[in-house]
Amino acid sequence: MTSKDETVIEKRLLLGPGPSNPSPNVLQALTRPMLGHLDPRFLEIFDVCKDRLRQVFRTENELTFPVSGTGTSGMEMLMNNFLEAGDEALIAVGGFFGGRMADFAERIGAKTTRYNYEWGTSINKDEFLGLIEKTKPKFVGIVHAETSTGVIQHMDEIPATVHKNGGILCLDCVTSLGTCELEIDGWDIDIAFSCSQKGLACPPGLSPITVSKRAMDRLKKRRTTIPSFYFNLKEILAYIDDSQKRAYHHTAPISMIYGLHEGLREILEEGLEARWQRHRDNAHYLIKNATGIDLTPFVKEEDRLYAVTTFMIPNGVDDQSVRSQLLNKYGIEIGGGFGKLAEKIWRIGLMGSNSKKEHVDRLFEALGAII
Amino acid sequence: MTSKDETVIEKRLLLGPGPSNPSPNVLQALTRPMLGHLDPRFLEIFDVCKDRLRQVFRTENELTFPVSGTGTSGMEMLMNNFLEAGDEALIAVGGFFGGRMADFAERIGAKTTRYNYEWGTSINKDEFLGLIEKTKPKFVGIVHAETSTGVIQHMDEIPATVHKNGGILCLDCVTSLGTCELEIDGWDIDIAFSCSQKGLACPPGLSPITVSKRAMDRLKKRRTTIPSFYFNLKEILAYIDDSQKRAYHHTAPISMIYGLHEGLREILEEGLEARWQRHRDNAHYLIKNATGIDLTPFVKEEDRLYAVTTFMIPNGVDDQSVRSQLLNKYGIEIGGGFGKLAEKIWRIGLMGSNSKKEHVDRLFEALGAII
Repeated sequence: MTSKDETVIEKRLLLGPGPSNPSPNVLQALTRPMLGHLDPRFLEIFDVCKDRLRQVFRTENELTFPVSGTGTSGMEMLMNNFLEAGDEALIAVGGFFGGRMADFAERIGAKTTRYNYEWGTSINKDEFLGLIEKTKPKFVGIVHAETSTGVIQHMDEIPATVHKNGGILCLDCVTSLGTCELEIDGWDIDIAFSCSQKGLACPPGLSPITVSKRAMDRLKKRRTTIPSFYFNLKEILAYIDDSQKRAYHHTAPISMIYGLHEGLREILEEGLEARWQRHRDNAHYLIKNATGIDLTPFVKEEDRLYAVTTFMIPNGVDDQSVRSQLLNKYGIEIGGGFGKLAEKIWRIGLMGSNSKKEHVDRLFEALGAII
Repeated sequence: MTSKDETVIEKRLLLGPGPSNPSPNVLQALTRPMLGHLDPRFLEIFDVCKDRLRQVFRTENELTFPVSGTGTSGMEMLMNNFLEAGDEALIAVGGFFGGRMADFAERIGAKTTRYNYEWGTSINKDEFLGLIEKTKPKFVGIVHAETSTGVIQHMDEIPATVHKNGGILCLDCVTSLGTCELEIDGWDIDIAFSCSQKGLACPPGLSPITVSKRAMDRLKKRRTTIPSFYFNLKEILAYIDDSQKRAYHHTAPISMIYGLHEGLREILEEGLEARWQRHRDNAHYLIKNATGIDLTPFVKEEDRLYAVTTFMIPNGVDDQSVRSQLLNKYGIEIGGGFGKLAEKIWRIGLMGSNSKKEHVDRLFEALGAII
């Protein structure tokens, strides 16, 4: 195989649950000249990223930065730092990623209560608030946008109840950051993590996180050692925090940070609320057009995510065959279901620079020809 | 600040301990069209990377792949998987990175013996073999190329002695992979980790690791749960292993894998031994020319790394002032010393595509004007 052959990759339109196609400017930013991770110019770029992330998370949390790993690494960092063996944890599980959060809590050795709710719905608020009052958890974990089911979770009184009972609230914003309403400070969320390859229109490989002062105070009172070095917030602060000496912790993934820097710039240029509106409009356009080929949304309107819409696969339609034809004949990727939703739903993502009416048209043209 | 201004980054010649300037083809590869992490075409590229990594590590270990994090994450993954609380560990500490490995072992709760040897020298073999016989460690950790001091560690009888006493040997190859002789199978090394931004001429953000069958057998016999999910080899195998169903574990950093794919192709095109020879030749050229400005190598010849050469800073020369003039006036980065070597040595890296005679000439022209 010559070098020329092997590097040819057909362009794909990625309309699954992620990764999405990065913005062209972001891809170009990856090729910027390499700098050292302690070079003042790089630290300046890194600090701009932190500031822009604060704007996109809608927070003033000083400790807001991209973890050097994929979205899952942000979950691991937050849970490893803010949850200890023996702690009472309450995790809401209404999909694959809620389940993963609960698995993490159990791995840490926390006394974990799983609040199981129906896949495809949101939390029953009264039940959940009651559980918080009853178990008084030190740590509550909720998936804001459950990518496996297409459900958004509204916060309402949850944060206040968590705090009243002495806990902190961790929000999985992997699919919501940059795609829909998210107000870290406005809703009083303590810690949150996301990823680079969905609403931020960057390649996968970074996990933006934000940590409140309340959570940092809690970190200082840990009884046990943080089990990880790579994901150790105390250790990493010496590099992240611009009031400190910028001690070496690990070599930052410079090129990926360049991409994030550009992706965030584009978001702020578009305007965060305009971006949310665009995602909302195009999700509505998707759903309106889906009726033409008999696709019914899996989630009722008020619980629906804008970034990833889930549809029930019509009776008699073969999941695998349709998806592989879409990919191989039309170069379009959509997502199948996970776990108990396997072969039952499709997950169609319109995220970041992929949230466009013309992509919806292209998808339905192809689906119309296949089904 | 307009978008145009902020994206202008002056080209720097990175002659420190890493990152190095990636090869131009690698940077271009980062912009290849995005694929999904379960797309058959991406899995094909990923498998090619695994195969090429095996060639560069000189191993037939099936389990050879890039961890989705920086070099430190590879260290954490291997130590978290192959070392348990209560295990006897022996770590050779003759520099910053040996010290970090020992810190990791202690964090895990292993009964850790630190074999301290002089910074700037290699291990005293007889002493070390004696310690292995005495402590019979389950886990022995050695830094193959100690980036903080510029010392290479020769393996000789060490692996055989480790195995005879029932242990496995973990090698930190962060600075040696792709720059000098490294024979994972030939030397009978059990597990090893490296990084992308030095000898492989890629951006920072990946940590290639390799794991022998002997180590995998050991993994099966763990008494305790692996403390991490992100770095959990058992869990990640379901995605990595091409004989399995490729279950989702985390979203691979696609663009970075494209870069690695190209970086490894270039290495194999050059020829691994030719690449080692190039690093050797240019390190000799560096040392020969260094006498012109009174720079003496810190490490004696037989212990010297080719990738990063350390020099004693001449009396009366101010470390910080020279390095910041080099960076700001000439666009050249070199490294200072760490810990007890701070302000005592310079670390000059000639790695990957940066290992060139003309870079040495450019450096000494600048240094000659400054000092």
